[in-house]
Amino acid sequence: MRILGIDPGSLVTGYGVIEKDGNYLRHVIHGEIKPQKGSLLSAVLISIYRQLSALIKETTPDAIAIENIFYGKNVRSLIRQAQVRGLVIFTCADQGVALFEYSPPEVKQAVVGYGRAEKRQVQIMVKTILKLSTLPPADAADALAVAVCHANFGKEQPI
Amino acid sequence: MRILGIDPGSLVTGYGVIEKDGNYLRHVIHGEIKPQKGSLLSAVLISIYRQLSALIKETTPDAIAIENIFYGKNVRSLIRQAQVRGLVIFTCADQGVALFEYSPPEVKQAVVGYGRAEKRQVQIMVKTILKLSTLPPADAADALAVAVCHANFGKEQPI
Repeated sequence: MRILGIDPGSLVTGYGVIEKDGNYLRHVIHGEIKPQKGSLLSAVLISIYRQLSALIKETTPDAIAIENIFYGKNVRSLIRQAQVRGLVIFTCADQGVALFEYSPPEVKQAVVGYGRAEKRQVQIMVKTILKLSTLPPADAADALAVAVCHANFGKEQPI
Repeated sequence: MRILGIDPGSLVTGYGVIEKDGNYLRHVIHGEIKPQKGSLLSAVLISIYRQLSALIKETTPDAIAIENIFYGKNVRSLIRQAQVRGLVIFTCADQGVALFEYSPPEVKQAVVGYGRAEKRQVQIMVKTILKLSTLPPADAADALAVAVCHANFGKEQPI
């Protein structure tokens, strides 16, 4: 089973694809979608839609996993992130792939074994679990982590 | 000039189209997009995208106006509304129509003449300004109000 993890952010949207074969997890690809600085919000959303649709078409995931929004942010950044997240959820549905949601503690629990782990610990554990040669950038690591989380927990109720 | 106003909500998305001819404002259409209760979020977003795209194609607005999000809400409802709003902004951009944003006090100022007016006053003033025979439902009235606001203020910087 191929899983695409997405970490939608107000500035950067991370993505990571893994392949689950029995208990074995294999890294396929990861990266970050970074709209040009100073772009209009509408241009940012169009750009994320295009890049994410192309990624889904290329990598043909069986499932997509995404994190809940973390409530501790300031309100402006929360709104901006939620706007991007709405577009990301639409894009996945538009491509006809089922989408599953996990909370940040569930994701951290799945990769680090501790629900309140630091970002850096997530990067290191993702590198170890997926046998990467270098540390993935933070947003791509979060995306790979939520994909690993879905590979392990396998929720059945899509959003 | 034809203006589409949109009021994206976590449950109901109101819309209203008006025509501006010099200082004269004419009502074209208004209504509400109400996704089926209990639908998955992904189904809600797909449904809003389809209905809104069809509305834009049918009514061919020259500009679209939308309200800022009101910060006073609880966080869950704020996130849900912002997710819908992100999808609505994408849909307008996808249809190639410029989108302009107004704050709730700007909209109330434009239709009631008082930035802290109640919802009911907005409905009554929208009915009066656009010579409607009945009071429009609250979310459609808010959408017509933001269209009237754009007709009067005419911001030049799209989002």
